[in-house]
Amino acid sequence: MATYETLDWDVDADGVAVLTLNRPDALNAFDLTMARELEQVFLTDARDDAVRAVVVTGAGRAFCAGMDLSAEGNVFGLDESLTPTPEDFRERYDEPPYDTGLRDTGGKVTLAMHALPKPVIGAINGAAVGIGATMTLAMDIRLASTKARIGFVFGRLGIVPEACSTWFLPRIVGIQQALEWVYSADILTAEQAHAGGLVRSLHEPDELLPAALDLARSFVVDRSPTALGLAKQMLYRNSAAADPLEAHLSDSLAMFYTSIADGKEGVAAFLEKRAPAFTGTATELPRIYPA
Amino acid sequence: MATYETLDWDVDADGVAVLTLNRPDALNAFDLTMARELEQVFLTDARDDAVRAVVVTGAGRAFCAGMDLSAEGNVFGLDESLTPTPEDFRERYDEPPYDTGLRDTGGKVTLAMHALPKPVIGAINGAAVGIGATMTLAMDIRLASTKARIGFVFGRLGIVPEACSTWFLPRIVGIQQALEWVYSADILTAEQAHAGGLVRSLHEPDELLPAALDLARSFVVDRSPTALGLAKQMLYRNSAAADPLEAHLSDSLAMFYTSIADGKEGVAAFLEKRAPAFTGTATELPRIYPA
Amino acid sequence: MATYETLDWDVDADGVAVLTLNRPDALNAFDLTMARELEQVFLTDARDDAVRAVVVTGAGRAFCAGMDLSAEGNVFGLDESLTPTPEDFRERYDEPPYDTGLRDTGGKVTLAMHALPKPVIGAINGAAVGIGATMTLAMDIRLASTKARIGFVFGRLGIVPEACSTWFLPRIVGIQQALEWVYSADILTAEQAHAGGLVRSLHEPDELLPAALDLARSFVVDRSPTALGLAKQMLYRNSAAADPLEAHLSDSLAMFYTSIADGKEGVAAFLEKRAPAFTGTATELPRIYPA
Repeated sequence: MATYETLDWDVDADGVAVLTLNRPDALNAFDLTMARELEQVFLTDARDDAVRAVVVTGAGRAFCAGMDLSAEGNVFGLDESLTPTPEDFRERYDEPPYDTGLRDTGGKVTLAMHALPKPVIGAINGAAVGIGATMTLAMDIRLASTKARIGFVFGRLGIVPEACSTWFLPRIVGIQQALEWVYSADILTAEQAHAGGLVRSLHEPDELLPAALDLARSFVVDRSPTALGLAKQMLYRNSAAADPLEAHLSDSLAMFYTSIADGKEGVAAFLEKRAPAFTGTATELPRIYPA
Repeated sequence: MATYETLDWDVDADGVAVLTLNRPDALNAFDLTMARELEQVFLTDARDDAVRAVVVTGAGRAFCAGMDLSAEGNVFGLDESLTPTPEDFRERYDEPPYDTGLRDTGGKVTLAMHALPKPVIGAINGAAVGIGATMTLAMDIRLASTKARIGFVFGRLGIVPEACSTWFLPRIVGIQQALEWVYSADILTAEQAHAGGLVRSLHEPDELLPAALDLARSFVVDRSPTALGLAKQMLYRNSAAADPLEAHLSDSLAMFYTSIADGKEGVAAFLEKRAPAFTGTATELPRIYPA
Repeated sequence: MATYETLDWDVDADGVAVLTLNRPDALNAFDLTMARELEQVFLTDARDDAVRAVVVTGAGRAFCAGMDLSAEGNVFGLDESLTPTPEDFRERYDEPPYDTGLRDTGGKVTLAMHALPKPVIGAINGAAVGIGATMTLAMDIRLASTKARIGFVFGRLGIVPEACSTWFLPRIVGIQQALEWVYSADILTAEQAHAGGLVRSLHEPDELLPAALDLARSFVVDRSPTALGLAKQMLYRNSAAADPLEAHLSDSLAMFYTSIADGKEGVAAFLEKRAPAFTGTATELPRIYPA
């Protein structure tokens, strides 16, 4: 397992990992090192079968104060000599020079988070601003401390909401609330974020991480990792499809392949009134979508 | 009209049909007979012009306790000798052996429900678990008894949410709530289901069916069946489109064809301050989408 | 600048425009002149760089009482001799005779509103019925007077919800609430509209317009018009995409082009603790989507 400069990564006996943004002296500000390390942790460590769910939080009093604007020179790491057209960029976004000189680093992180077929829970312990706010949108569920402050402040900085946030935010809070928060570019209180549907529950600061861990554990114990991994894919992907027939085609296959595997154990355990002993993992999910 | 082994079907003078899941001794558990009969009732009986809206409820104390796990052998009716790829299944999902040996039976039911161009209302009178929960998502509106219990319990059984539920659930309750309920696989109280936006209102057990019938009747009396049938298609299909222009193209046609038919009577009745006498039906809706 | 027969258009020093539907003797009923003028104001006047946000309200006691049914002859302006198929109409919707004889006039208005890359706020001061209700859905945010009454009454008139409302309404209030309001075709109180999530806040009649202007101003002062214009496009378009990768492709480009323009000033102003002096406009937005 890699060690990280900006992150802590710890997995408990139940398979609940705690990922801590760990630059407390800089309010866990997001820099290019943290971007690279966050992408890596979700593409490698978090994919280990021993990991069943991930809780993300911040060390110290902030969650993540946003892009580190104290960096010398070009804080976004962009190659300003480029002049990409949308047509050209879509053809070659994953090749040099676009991959490293132009692609949004926050988006690389959230795409890696989103692709993890396991529950990801945000425990927003303090200020979550800019990329500190948008990265939480790719997590499946958000809990917050009463001291949390959340801000989609991009409009004040002359930039746009990134990290795929315009795909996620309206799915979470509806289009009207999303537009208002992005237009206002204000810092929301924990109560405002909760009332608007962004965070699922508020907690006293000391009780936030325990609550997030309890929730993660409730997704893990006696649940099939295969079933949850497929369900995560299906909820995001099918809900964005044009027609319920799309869901039917993938959920028929998912139902078929789980029924003849973990489903047999699940039904047997239910009928025998005992805890199931699932053997499936989230690593080798049956393929339910065309390549 | 067919008679059914597992269902009751009754249409009143206003055109409000009550469909009752009727295996009370088995808590209305869903078996392959009920699956076949539910699909049939929505594809045939419910399409009669005398039917203007459908209310679905359960006999006895449950709504539907889920898949009948007491069945001998393969409860899901799957042909385990198949090894479908997504590519192959998508080509031939409606042909043997996939149509009968692999397609999710719950999805066949919800697709038939969804295709009915008339309001469908769920009156969830008790336990609605597994397919008992997911089948309600394809209904347009859900009311529940204070005694209702609703569970997307698939993850505990090692299987996935089916019946196109991953298309419907996030549209009803948002993606964050959908993920939590599917990950937790818990049984929700009526209050939790209401607070989360799944059910539109709670009712004392004795008042549930009357409330559902009143709501259905309010959609029927003095309303144009053509207009409501088109509106149902448009709300589901256009809201899943990439762009509002898609809505403009279909609603221009729908507006045109209704304006020169029931719309003339509707406007005349409005100006003459009398009840309209619409002649259109939901059977021969004008074609507003390309084939 | 054009003068209008049915509208008032007034832009203040901060760039907040007030657009007033101005046929108070007819409760601001929508006729073919108003349709033409509304489309024009959003395609021309509102696109001026001096305009940063638009507030829409009604003169007198109504917002807009719907289509003017007092017009002689064919109130919808349709050419009833046409017999369009969906295939043919989609090919030629923007050509004679379909463009003027068939396309929904409400939809032309809402598409123009939606295409404006600036915040549009509805201040619903009284009755908003039929097109008076559906036109508000293409506005980004809706505030209402406690005296507002809102009705998607189409089903009572034998016609369908138009003006792209079936694309917008479920995004704002969810599919269950949208279906119920369209099926019932009832007039909602301000409280019902607020509880259902259609309007963002309720205000005493005298305080409605000031509140809408304050909100608009909060979107304008010290915000980048380029950033807000792109964000509006991205929130609507990316949230309707099949996959977050679509958002990543457009937001990488949007981030790139804003970072090397208004973003430099925004970051500098933040670090220097001063108000930013953005020079970008909403007129020449960087192109972030393929043609």
